[in-house]
Amino acid sequence: MRNLTEKNLTATALERISECGDPRLKEVTTALIRHLHDFAREVRLTPDEWNVAIKFLTEVGHITDDKRQEFILLSDTLGLSALVDLIANEGKSAASTDSSLLGPFYVDGVREMPLGTDIAGETAGERVIVRGIVSSINRKPLAGALIDVWQAAPNGLYDVQDPNQPEKNLRGKFRTDAEGKFNFRSVKPASYPIPFDGPVGKMLRALGRHPYRPAHVHFMISAPHHRTLTTALYIDGDKYLDSDAVFGSRQSLVAGYRSSSEGGSAIDALEFDFILDAEAS
Amino acid sequence: MRNLTEKNLTATALERISECGDPRLKEVTTALIRHLHDFAREVRLTPDEWNVAIKFLTEVGHITDDKRQEFILLSDTLGLSALVDLIANEGKSAASTDSSLLGPFYVDGVREMPLGTDIAGETAGERVIVRGIVSSINRKPLAGALIDVWQAAPNGLYDVQDPNQPEKNLRGKFRTDAEGKFNFRSVKPASYPIPFDGPVGKMLRALGRHPYRPAHVHFMISAPHHRTLTTALYIDGDKYLDSDAVFGSRQSLVAGYRSSSEGGSAIDALEFDFILDAEAS
Repeated sequence: MRNLTEKNLTATALERISECGDPRLKEVTTALIRHLHDFAREVRLTPDEWNVAIKFLTEVGHITDDKRQEFILLSDTLGLSALVDLIANEGKSAASTDSSLLGPFYVDGVREMPLGTDIAGETAGERVIVRGIVSSINRKPLAGALIDVWQAAPNGLYDVQDPNQPEKNLRGKFRTDAEGKFNFRSVKPASYPIPFDGPVGKMLRALGRHPYRPAHVHFMISAPHHRTLTTALYIDGDKYLDSDAVFGSRQSLVAGYRSSSEGGSAIDALEFDFILDAEAS
Repeated sequence: MRNLTEKNLTATALERISECGDPRLKEVTTALIRHLHDFAREVRLTPDEWNVAIKFLTEVGHITDDKRQEFILLSDTLGLSALVDLIANEGKSAASTDSSLLGPFYVDGVREMPLGTDIAGETAGERVIVRGIVSSINRKPLAGALIDVWQAAPNGLYDVQDPNQPEKNLRGKFRTDAEGKFNFRSVKPASYPIPFDGPVGKMLRALGRHPYRPAHVHFMISAPHHRTLTTALYIDGDKYLDSDAVFGSRQSLVAGYRSSSEGGSAIDALEFDFILDAEAS
């Protein structure tokens, strides 16, 4: 029988999973145990600190329910979610539009609407036209591409967080026309804090970080024979562009408002052309 | 504004905590983010796997309550708890008795009992005498050292898990005599599974691991001017000695039963001499 030491404990724990019948689970767990142990050894983690960590994770678990997912918030704020997204999109053509986080507020099953629809309904706020072209990496416009969009209201809340918004407010589904073009109306999005009244908010405060995301509109765009693109447009000039609490914003996805007009009235437009990568073969 | 990539995301996340006012929190979080990101990059963690992890942690959080701590179970089974214990005991004299996990079943406030008391009360099971000497590393016996002991019943359950055991069953507190000696009676402990009907049990099954701990008796021993020793005795011959599900057992803490007698009747004895390190100065 081996006497366990700080040095040989990791090898002992890894031997223990040698019988694991799932090679990928074994690979992931091996790396997890190795990094977890290296972390504890490196910082000389104390029993008191370990207790704080257990208590923190317990609080994260207890505040999590059907409406609120604090573990995702934790993953987001530690940069893990953005990293998993970047890894998943490795190997995509450099010519295609960058991806960005799906986030926790996507809702499936929004009905398709005619181009030009105002997805903001009765929501107060400055109107904006959102428009652009969807094409493939060879710049061929994609007719009939499906565009799922969603965003927060100017109060910083999504419909699912806000009892004062009707269901599916600020959500829409559109199809590009024969020239690959789309357009719809909405309100200008605002920067907003992620939920910060729980343990993750406490963690951000202790770390000297703010909980804000820069203003953005989410897009999920799909077309036959193309890789589905989950991304977002970030509004130029937003003061949180460079410090997004969840590491979603990126330069290539920043778009500014341009003065435009519609039926004789001035209205700002947000324009962006999306380029879908070919389906992975 | 920086375009986030798989390579620069970690540096970006670390810059974000540069304003943290607590140097130790900053140090620990820096190492945590670095190892978490290295882990994800190394295994090329997929969005589906990330989802499984979020769901798993959510289940661990939801089964955790005042009576059950699944996060501690997770830490125990990944070897983290044992590692933190080993790190905390670094620098202890090699002559002193090794430590072992406190575990989740310690209860404070057990009353002191006369030496020789049977802590098993009405519990069915084969009786055993537990005895030994407590000394300091210079082998000087320690009179009046306080010994807190606790163990599971032969059914594998501690009093706090088992409605059929009276409160504080199989728990005792003793003081060594003028020669540093202690002795008490109990029942022979049995190996038992950690709670395996939750997500951690599911994890162990998927990894091809069993949930058993070898039979043991817990000890917490304190004396003035000495480092408090939290440890356990593991019973020689137990089939789980070399595969303790929580990595607590170690060769130096294994003790065998010896034939003994008491008032003319044969009874097995479990003997161990504990050596306390001097208090850290």
